[in-house]
Amino acid sequence: MSRLHRALLAEALGTALLLATVVGSGIMGVALSQGNDGIALLANASATGAILYVLIVLFGPISGAHFNPAVTLAMRLRGALDTRTTLAYIAVQVIAAILGVVLAHAMFDQALLQPGTHARAGMGQWLSEGVATFGLLLTILLGAAHRPAAVPALVGGYIFAAYWFTGSTSFANPAVTLARSLTQSFAGIRPVDVPAFVIAQMIGMGLAVWVAASLIPLNRALRD
Amino acid sequence: MSRLHRALLAEALGTALLLATVVGSGIMGVALSQGNDGIALLANASATGAILYVLIVLFGPISGAHFNPAVTLAMRLRGALDTRTTLAYIAVQVIAAILGVVLAHAMFDQALLQPGTHARAGMGQWLSEGVATFGLLLTILLGAAHRPAAVPALVGGYIFAAYWFTGSTSFANPAVTLARSLTQSFAGIRPVDVPAFVIAQMIGMGLAVWVAASLIPLNRALRD
Amino acid sequence: MSRLHRALLAEALGTALLLATVVGSGIMGVALSQGNDGIALLANASATGAILYVLIVLFGPISGAHFNPAVTLAMRLRGALDTRTTLAYIAVQVIAAILGVVLAHAMFDQALLQPGTHARAGMGQWLSEGVATFGLLLTILLGAAHRPAAVPALVGGYIFAAYWFTGSTSFANPAVTLARSLTQSFAGIRPVDVPAFVIAQMIGMGLAVWVAASLIPLNRALRD
Amino acid sequence: MSRLHRALLAEALGTALLLATVVGSGIMGVALSQGNDGIALLANASATGAILYVLIVLFGPISGAHFNPAVTLAMRLRGALDTRTTLAYIAVQVIAAILGVVLAHAMFDQALLQPGTHARAGMGQWLSEGVATFGLLLTILLGAAHRPAAVPALVGGYIFAAYWFTGSTSFANPAVTLARSLTQSFAGIRPVDVPAFVIAQMIGMGLAVWVAASLIPLNRALRD
Repeated sequence: MSRLHRALLAEALGTALLLATVVGSGIMGVALSQGNDGIALLANASATGAILYVLIVLFGPISGAHFNPAVTLAMRLRGALDTRTTLAYIAVQVIAAILGVVLAHAMFDQALLQPGTHARAGMGQWLSEGVATFGLLLTILLGAAHRPAAVPALVGGYIFAAYWFTGSTSFANPAVTLARSLTQSFAGIRPVDVPAFVIAQMIGMGLAVWVAASLIPLNRALRD
Repeated sequence: MSRLHRALLAEALGTALLLATVVGSGIMGVALSQGNDGIALLANASATGAILYVLIVLFGPISGAHFNPAVTLAMRLRGALDTRTTLAYIAVQVIAAILGVVLAHAMFDQALLQPGTHARAGMGQWLSEGVATFGLLLTILLGAAHRPAAVPALVGGYIFAAYWFTGSTSFANPAVTLARSLTQSFAGIRPVDVPAFVIAQMIGMGLAVWVAASLIPLNRALRD
Repeated sequence: MSRLHRALLAEALGTALLLATVVGSGIMGVALSQGNDGIALLANASATGAILYVLIVLFGPISGAHFNPAVTLAMRLRGALDTRTTLAYIAVQVIAAILGVVLAHAMFDQALLQPGTHARAGMGQWLSEGVATFGLLLTILLGAAHRPAAVPALVGGYIFAAYWFTGSTSFANPAVTLARSLTQSFAGIRPVDVPAFVIAQMIGMGLAVWVAASLIPLNRALRD
Repeated sequence: MSRLHRALLAEALGTALLLATVVGSGIMGVALSQGNDGIALLANASATGAILYVLIVLFGPISGAHFNPAVTLAMRLRGALDTRTTLAYIAVQVIAAILGVVLAHAMFDQALLQPGTHARAGMGQWLSEGVATFGLLLTILLGAAHRPAAVPALVGGYIFAAYWFTGSTSFANPAVTLARSLTQSFAGIRPVDVPAFVIAQMIGMGLAVWVAASLIPLNRALRD
């Protein structure tokens, strides 16, 4: 396999396992927690944080471990990726995210595709997605500049916290948002609510790229 | 931007995100946990610990990542900061802490400023704040002397534990205390209870500076 | 003791303590959680993840810290172990896993051996075991190639997540599966359901060895 | 202060804060969890694990961070401490452990000393204490030999797991056991049950020293 093909395989495996975890742990959490969604979100958030740590260590050296079009676009903005690679990454992330949702449903003997019914809209939700994505990109850009070996733990820790401190439970990822519109479980979202989430995420991403450039005068923040 | 301006921006971003996490995760925890505040505090404490780890890694190299007037004053006491920088740090921390609370309220579609109604007073509470701040400063001073790269994890781990082992759930930060008097959610405190908390925190801070100096004879405890 | 005997003692101690933790924390979790299995699984998953981190650090330098015939066979497939050592490892793992279950029962004053009654079968369960073991082996093989010192934390983090994201709570280990057929507690499985789990685990393991070889062109993935 | 006096101060501070955490987090956990002791033990175990990580980093370079007569005696057995230092450590640990319990009670506005009423006896409990202490000492001795910088995280992770996998919630420390006989809260134990716990802990400690010596042929297991 070429280096690009290996990178795309890494993005595919990582994104699919990430979505399988986000959706699967939500299903398991709700199934076991007798209606107490606090316990379900503890399970969901800690499983997601843990798998992000693992997946970024495993696939970072192969593809950069983006698993997220917002991260890939930020790297494009900073000149670390060419346009063709950027488009290939995003296409693979979207397809793999959907396959990850299908995999989660299959592991729990559920219908493979379920149009989302969980309404998530309004100013609080959109602000939440902007803040969540701003924080995620700042974590990646400053983390890569100051302590690159810690990026896996930083992203896992950040997303764990952001599940709790945002009103939207922090999607912060357009591919994840789209894929989660195909589940009716705990982690789902109505398809009609996806575009506004993605717009908010893009605004948060752009703001983070700008703030990171202000905070780090030299061009030290490229995630290798 | 000058080095000081970058430091102040880092203190502002870090303190605002810290407060958004403390207040936001409290709101989410209570909203989901069917009245079981044990689950809400697990969420609140682990989200706060995780974001502290992240924020100190991100902003430590830029500003020292104090986010806390008690830490800034301890550094002044030890001669690591001049008076002008100390005052600028504290002013930014207080303003950013309030903005963080406003941000949390906005993400949950709540009134932006809510005078606190949660009574927190009495000997147990004040002793708790003294112990909590003593432990936090000891963690920072000895951690910086013995293993500086671990300070982010040490502070996150310490605060997680202190949320549980103190009777006050460990504010341990005058700016945080003041800002939390502007929310009626889980993390709130009555404005009238703020001054005694701050006094207890100052006593705990001073004691820690003294004990750290006894334990580390050479002047090795400055947090770079 | 010879080097092989020390390795076998390390596999025995590690596998027995792993099973004591898996079964013991399940018993304790259910005993305390008033029927809320979400809390019991949080306890079970986090105790298992934590002990895996500890045991792999302690015994990794002595035996490789497999504690799992699927891992031992993958190492055999990759040429890192000879056949005699492979068979000795697997025999010790199976016996020690059973002793670990007996130990857990003894610590909770229960009958020492309890034929499992928890039905775990069907496509979702088998797919789950294949995915769980695929992910575990990928974690070990890529982790050892990219960041060997992190393997203990990676395996602990992965298994924590996999308890939640798979429909089977991720056994991912033939010796563990067999031993868990001897308990009627939370972690149990019917003896009749064991063979299909082991077959699914072997398929997942083989797939991971193949994918890891594709992702890492040079032979860098041997876990020393 | 002399080196020994600094070491004794470090043992005193560490042991007192450890006990304040064990007892305080138990009181808080029970107060908030509506009778669900699974949540209380999650809080208790994770606060204890986190503070152990912090305290061992802070005080390890000053005193070795034993906080535990079983650890101090194991170091004496291995020849790392002289008899006078051993006795001074143990005296300080016992006194500081009691002061830590008093401090926890004071922070929660409770009676300062409360003769324990929680019955903990029988074969399962004693076996649990033997296993818990065996595992703790093995963690320290092998951890110090293989990865000394990880000992704080290893001990924190081990104790978190041992709270769940043993029938006794893992006291594993004679000073802790004695001090916990002075609280009627979640973490308490009847004074009459203390001696058998301590005997079981001593047996587990001795066994671990012997096994560690077998696993590490050269004398590499001395801590620090």
